Amino acid sequence: MIDDFAAAAQATMAYLRHRLGFRLWMVTRTEGDDWIVLYADDAGYGITPGQSFRWTDTVCARMVLGHGPNIAPSTIDVPAYAQAPLGRHLPTGAYVGIPLRRGDGSLFGTLCGFDPQPQPPSIREELDTLTLLGSLLATILDRELDSGSEARLADRAGADDARDSLTGLVNRRGWDMFLQREEERCSRYGHSACVVSIDLDDLKFTNDTQGQGSGDALLMRAARALEQVTRGTDVIARLGGDEFAMLMVECDYFDAQAMLMRVQEALAAADVRASLGMAMRKPGYDLEEAFAMADAEMVRAKRSRKVLN
Amino acid sequence: MIDDFAAAAQATMAYLRHRLGFRLWMVTRTEGDDWIVLYADDAGYGITPGQSFRWTDTVCARMVLGHGPNIAPSTIDVPAYAQAPLGRHLPTGAYVGIPLRRGDGSLFGTLCGFDPQPQPPSIREELDTLTLLGSLLATILDRELDSGSEARLADRAGADDARDSLTGLVNRRGWDMFLQREEERCSRYGHSACVVSIDLDDLKFTNDTQGQGSGDALLMRAARALEQVTRGTDVIARLGGDEFAMLMVECDYFDAQAMLMRVQEALAAADVRASLGMAMRKPGYDLEEAFAMADAEMVRAKRSRKVLN
Repeated sequence: MIDDFAAAAQATMAYLRHRLGFRLWMVTRTEGDDWIVLYADDAGYGITPGQSFRWTDTVCARMVLGHGPNIAPSTIDVPAYAQAPLGRHLPTGAYVGIPLRRGDGSLFGTLCGFDPQPQPPSIREELDTLTLLGSLLATILDRELDSGSEARLADRAGADDARDSLTGLVNRRGWDMFLQREEERCSRYGHSACVVSIDLDDLKFTNDTQGQGSGDALLMRAARALEQVTRGTDVIARLGGDEFAMLMVECDYFDAQAMLMRVQEALAAADVRASLGMAMRKPGYDLEEAFAMADAEMVRAKRSRKVLN
Repeated sequence: MIDDFAAAAQATMAYLRHRLGFRLWMVTRTEGDDWIVLYADDAGYGITPGQSFRWTDTVCARMVLGHGPNIAPSTIDVPAYAQAPLGRHLPTGAYVGIPLRRGDGSLFGTLCGFDPQPQPPSIREELDTLTLLGSLLATILDRELDSGSEARLADRAGADDARDSLTGLVNRRGWDMFLQREEERCSRYGHSACVVSIDLDDLKFTNDTQGQGSGDALLMRAARALEQVTRGTDVIARLGGDEFAMLMVECDYFDAQAMLMRVQEALAAADVRASLGMAMRKPGYDLEEAFAMADAEMVRAKRSRKVLN
């Protein structure tokens, strides 16, 4: 029973292998310069889902740019394909590939097949099959990602018992829950994401010298500042004491840098001093590991600013 | 660009015609004993979308029941197919068909092809192509129907200016709007629906003898009674004065009968006397026409009860 993109991708790869042969079929995601294997039907290449390569090294990138055909029975005849650096890892005597595009026309990834040996020229006749299958898969994907975005927003809106009573932000329980759910989405669709660890510099000092009311006011200013610069699908948590955390979904490294800058500006404008550490989720490197790294970064930043509290 | 079920169906039929020949390709819906043509790629049969036949007369019904194969190069060799009464309207020398099922396993309709002449036995090799395409189409359909149900609920929740200020029910403006939107869904997916016209018997008498407060209370009792027995996706309207109307979506004749009985019981329990008329939407017979017939039924019922006001 096919009822989601994963099952549709598997069924399509199994069909193509049966129809066209080819040792390796994949559904991939492109994300920045990463080329991420979401699903693979592999008889010999040793490829596993979750693996990633440099997008610019791939035959698929050249296909998407129109530097070669969707079906190349013999890649040696297509210079752009023969020269693709990834050929060293994925010996490519024959290649088949079609872009998978979102409803807005943007590139999601590819449906592609590789074989070490050249294949008969007659496989070119399967172009219309490949085109149709690629379009149907992309339609299923698009619907699934749209309803996934709605589910994510509904997730964020619910979960009252996952909130910090003072700031209204997500508490540690909610943070752990949202991080795990987002990790599932990331590994399923190859989404990128970034996490930030934030530690206020002056909470203890403020509490000690000005009383807890002032400390609470500082926490509230920090919370509102973080909310100002994030989207509804992002997560801002107060993990306890003066520790905050942020999860930014479907954002690449450049988005993350820009976001970090906005966070710093917003905190400064709210007269909140804090140390920050940021890390990207990468394929093979999950959100929890990324957050541990962001945390270590934050500690390093705090030390280098010689603020110890 | 394929971005919905309609486009996916058209692209799939065009592909199959190119690949297998066959004069007629269709995506159909089964609804009660109706077999409704949703999309057709027709070169000679004279079939148009929206046309309907008796489901039990069709080759497709026999295929779904397992009385013959998905691919029949020569239907004369398959008694169940050769005897299908619809063969008189759709001469069927060769047949190809696959069920389209919802995510819950229920039958939605079929993807099918017809040709007046027998075809070469080699077309049997396309069974895996047909199976995969049917599964992918069904997945797209399922997602689209799910998001359609959500959109319908969101529709109903909004539209404050389409409400009657006394009862909070939908007013005539809202009724016209919802009827038109549901008609679009029905003609797109072959959904069935039913409309009911309701006229209170005693409003004028109550207003005249007990004052308008009592008349308003009568209207409110009627509105609450109707709300009790309908689903969130149905529409209940006060069209003005003592006229009410109901639209029940995705309900067949048996559901509609049961619903009508519940409406009568609920009105009686609320001490509201009324005359009712009901009519089903049918293919080729839209919701507006169905409502005109429900209205005529209601007038007939009122006369037969010799209640004239």
